[in-house]
Amino acid sequence: MTKAVTISLDAMGGDGGIDVVIPAALDYLKHDKETSLILVGQEALLKERVGSHGFGDRLKIHHASQEVAMDELPSKALRGKKDSSMRVAINLVKEGVADACVSAGNTGALMATSRFVLKMLPNVDRPAIISALPCIEGQTYMLDLGANVDCTAEHLFQFAVMGSELVSAVADIPNPRIGLLNIGQEEIKGNEQVKSAHELLAASSLNYVGYVEGDDVYKGGADVVVSDGFVGNVALKSSEGVAKMISHFMKEGFSKNWLTKLAGLIAMPVLRSLRRRIDPRRYNGASLLGLRGIVIKSHGGADELAFANAISRARKEALTDVPSRIKAQVEAHLRRESE
Amino acid sequence: MTKAVTISLDAMGGDGGIDVVIPAALDYLKHDKETSLILVGQEALLKERVGSHGFGDRLKIHHASQEVAMDELPSKALRGKKDSSMRVAINLVKEGVADACVSAGNTGALMATSRFVLKMLPNVDRPAIISALPCIEGQTYMLDLGANVDCTAEHLFQFAVMGSELVSAVADIPNPRIGLLNIGQEEIKGNEQVKSAHELLAASSLNYVGYVEGDDVYKGGADVVVSDGFVGNVALKSSEGVAKMISHFMKEGFSKNWLTKLAGLIAMPVLRSLRRRIDPRRYNGASLLGLRGIVIKSHGGADELAFANAISRARKEALTDVPSRIKAQVEAHLRRESE
Repeated sequence: MTKAVTISLDAMGGDGGIDVVIPAALDYLKHDKETSLILVGQEALLKERVGSHGFGDRLKIHHASQEVAMDELPSKALRGKKDSSMRVAINLVKEGVADACVSAGNTGALMATSRFVLKMLPNVDRPAIISALPCIEGQTYMLDLGANVDCTAEHLFQFAVMGSELVSAVADIPNPRIGLLNIGQEEIKGNEQVKSAHELLAASSLNYVGYVEGDDVYKGGADVVVSDGFVGNVALKSSEGVAKMISHFMKEGFSKNWLTKLAGLIAMPVLRSLRRRIDPRRYNGASLLGLRGIVIKSHGGADELAFANAISRARKEALTDVPSRIKAQVEAHLRRESE
Repeated sequence: MTKAVTISLDAMGGDGGIDVVIPAALDYLKHDKETSLILVGQEALLKERVGSHGFGDRLKIHHASQEVAMDELPSKALRGKKDSSMRVAINLVKEGVADACVSAGNTGALMATSRFVLKMLPNVDRPAIISALPCIEGQTYMLDLGANVDCTAEHLFQFAVMGSELVSAVADIPNPRIGLLNIGQEEIKGNEQVKSAHELLAASSLNYVGYVEGDDVYKGGADVVVSDGFVGNVALKSSEGVAKMISHFMKEGFSKNWLTKLAGLIAMPVLRSLRRRIDPRRYNGASLLGLRGIVIKSHGGADELAFANAISRARKEALTDVPSRIKAQVEAHLRRESE
């Protein structure tokens, strides 16, 4: 893996904006000598904040006069912000100047703009958001995490093909196990879309392991878990909610009195390693799949560490050329179906 | 609260069957002198296992010759198991012999049988499963947890009315805050059912606080969170999965070597109190709402403590006569709508 990769960064996006993106970029360049970064945003501001650096051509600044607000409507961003840092960063991918782009800006706008600028891959109807989650054994990739609220069985099938290809490319799992998210009640099992998607998956050449339930996501029985964006988003957010609640209760418990504080101090190494294992920053960087280019969405509240992880995810996808692989796989599945 | 209540128990249901239900019942009777229990199942077996007890008429045995298997199809149980412990326990509620029933048997069969035997309340289209979940402040009740996979806006609205009434009855919250589960993307926010349900709720006299996201469930911003059964079930199961994963990592971390074991020993009181706070056994006992009678579903894998909690939930609902309250509320909302 010594191919040079260039990644454009929406420097103004996210809750932290340049305060997060610039230090993350500078730090990233120190550790990865094969990658070049393009900071996209207010040129004067960026130049001032970056100052002098020793990265030469590996760090460039590209001007964009506008910014997309975190709560801006996607349609408004699309129509009214043609020179936003987000849009220009995506344009650089379209023009082939960058191999991938990363933005911590608002998801809806990023999705709409990426779709408009880069266009969908042939035979892919909808883009999907995929991200890795921690699980007891390794990681589970889950999609769609919120790009599509109403999905047909065919959409779910396409998500499975795309997810499978992404995971085999970036996680080095040759034939990822695909699970379809469902609920465990007999007879009423699943709604109609899920039932039909099940048939499509079972008949395909994918490594389909059948239905999985919400708790299976964290057990590791599947490498890729497929659902529509409404269900996937609720599952993801609920999981985050539980993790935060437990961490809240733990902090509260250990800070009750001097005895519990002492216990907390002694237990610190174990608690710290637990926190590291489920640290959402390590999993930061969701991919927008199905586009003719690589776009990585960083969490809006990402810090430097988290944003740097999103950059390294972009690099991995660029190195393995995920969009071309997905394009080929989708075609292969269509060919097989028509045979 | 000194009214006498009689509760029928499906003694053969659940993974543990009589090994859980009998000790849970005996223990429960010791602590609650106002409640009578009827154990429903194989008479000879139950008599032998219960042996002599000092509860007199407060503990009765009612014969039922069949059992519903945990993996039995609901339709098969309904047609072929007319003398199952589950069905007979529900019959006792129908006949007015018991004020409520508890079963740890399979959810689909319990739902189908309850609906067939007890019938729905007037103007309620679908039963819904509701349960309490721990949250940072107090508890959140969530419904539907899996009874209905495809719901209309009107169904979601009815769930809200029923959930509101249940919580005001058993949790002593006069005007519960109702949240509607949704995802946070702008513009594509929510599918059509959720959007229409939002309109219905906003126009109603319920204490509707608007959309909530998956992580809000555990923050405590709403007393009742409404969703369709597919989404609710996935949210619940995902949450369980995360909690189990964290507990697994914690055990692993503390058992690494003698130093971490020592740390675990010292941190034990705090960890134990954490475990107690999120212990699913404390929240055991989901209500099947919308029926003309009280049916409580205990977790299939419930132990004695968990099953006893389900009994005490049944008692609470019997004391406050939840079905009558729901009936009245549904009528009141219909009246208001037509005015």
